[in-house]
Amino acid sequence: MTSLSATARTRLGRLPDRAATDRAALHEILDEGMICHLGVLVDGTPRVIPTCYGRAGDTLYLHGSTGASSLMAGPSQEICVTVTHVDGLVLARSLFHHSINYRSAMIYGTPRLVTDATEKLTALRVITEALAPGQWDVARAPTRKEMAAVAVLALPLDEASVKIRQGPPGDDEEDYALDVWAGVLPVRQTFGPPAPDPRLRPGVPVPGHIARLGTETAPTS
Amino acid sequence: MTSLSATARTRLGRLPDRAATDRAALHEILDEGMICHLGVLVDGTPRVIPTCYGRAGDTLYLHGSTGASSLMAGPSQEICVTVTHVDGLVLARSLFHHSINYRSAMIYGTPRLVTDATEKLTALRVITEALAPGQWDVARAPTRKEMAAVAVLALPLDEASVKIRQGPPGDDEEDYALDVWAGVLPVRQTFGPPAPDPRLRPGVPVPGHIARLGTETAPTS
Repeated sequence: MTSLSATARTRLGRLPDRAATDRAALHEILDEGMICHLGVLVDGTPRVIPTCYGRAGDTLYLHGSTGASSLMAGPSQEICVTVTHVDGLVLARSLFHHSINYRSAMIYGTPRLVTDATEKLTALRVITEALAPGQWDVARAPTRKEMAAVAVLALPLDEASVKIRQGPPGDDEEDYALDVWAGVLPVRQTFGPPAPDPRLRPGVPVPGHIARLGTETAPTS
Repeated sequence: MTSLSATARTRLGRLPDRAATDRAALHEILDEGMICHLGVLVDGTPRVIPTCYGRAGDTLYLHGSTGASSLMAGPSQEICVTVTHVDGLVLARSLFHHSINYRSAMIYGTPRLVTDATEKLTALRVITEALAPGQWDVARAPTRKEMAAVAVLALPLDEASVKIRQGPPGDDEEDYALDVWAGVLPVRQTFGPPAPDPRLRPGVPVPGHIARLGTETAPTS
């Protein structure tokens, strides 16, 4: 029953030897995810919002409507972005040691509102391609008006922590003698077969990059 | 590219006609989930933590180590709990109208630290059974020492909002004439076959309630 509690906020800073490993793990966790949970302070209370994101190097990009108060509150404050993958249920011999196998990344920082037109377009491409690689080149590009309606935030991956739990349960030594089944029930996220829009023009085939996604294991999110 | 932005904080209050429907939807979204993302204020900054939960009636239970500062900060402040299910990638003809099909619940409230022994045990049962129904009756019960090491928070589902996006893309009318494939790529979370603990006693079979879970579609989280 151990909860997925957070790592200490500055773990990377306090364990500099693990920084390189943790950075690779951080990138991997972020790149596998579809959505993050963004924490912002609104009227003195934390608000947690699911939203898409993309990563370019050591920058995380978030986007949303310019009318979204939660997103637009970002640039004036320190925010927290968390990405979590659930990998399995850990079924122990004792209720106390039940747990979840997961990989989680948490990033703190004060985001920057992206105003440069080139960076903004790049950020939107990164966010789109993170979800469905190949879509950027086939769908209609954003108009100037659409670009103006979207706000993009850039968050540096400077202060981040990674927490991972994998493997079998860790029971108390005396409990291993119990005749209770123990192990892990893996959790996987998969894509189903593409469902065409009812208004799709006749004869337009499912493009290869989408068909391929449908046969692959989806990233957990 | 529409983000999953939050509903207005008091949507249920402002749309009372939808309250009953929304409450059923709220329960359904919560009951299908495996983890939530808990937002707490720590040293003036929001922190977003993945954690397990369970629901009993209109109370959400969270638990964790009594040493977990994020959880223990809860009872003294208003927190936000968000549960999100990703149901599909919405691939539109225009990049601007790309989106995600999802169901999301957001709850605000000041949690209560559960001190009554009976309620605490009930809460832990609810949390365990939410993840793996049937485990509570087969695994070793918590000892008094283990109970003391776990903190449980109760959060009323009084102030909550639900946001759902389903269905095909909503493109601009003129874009329906484009020869661009559009539709939804469904996302599903499934359990894999149970992986026995390497230290499992020989001859202990996978119990029926776990074997069944392994053949069902897992809740998304």
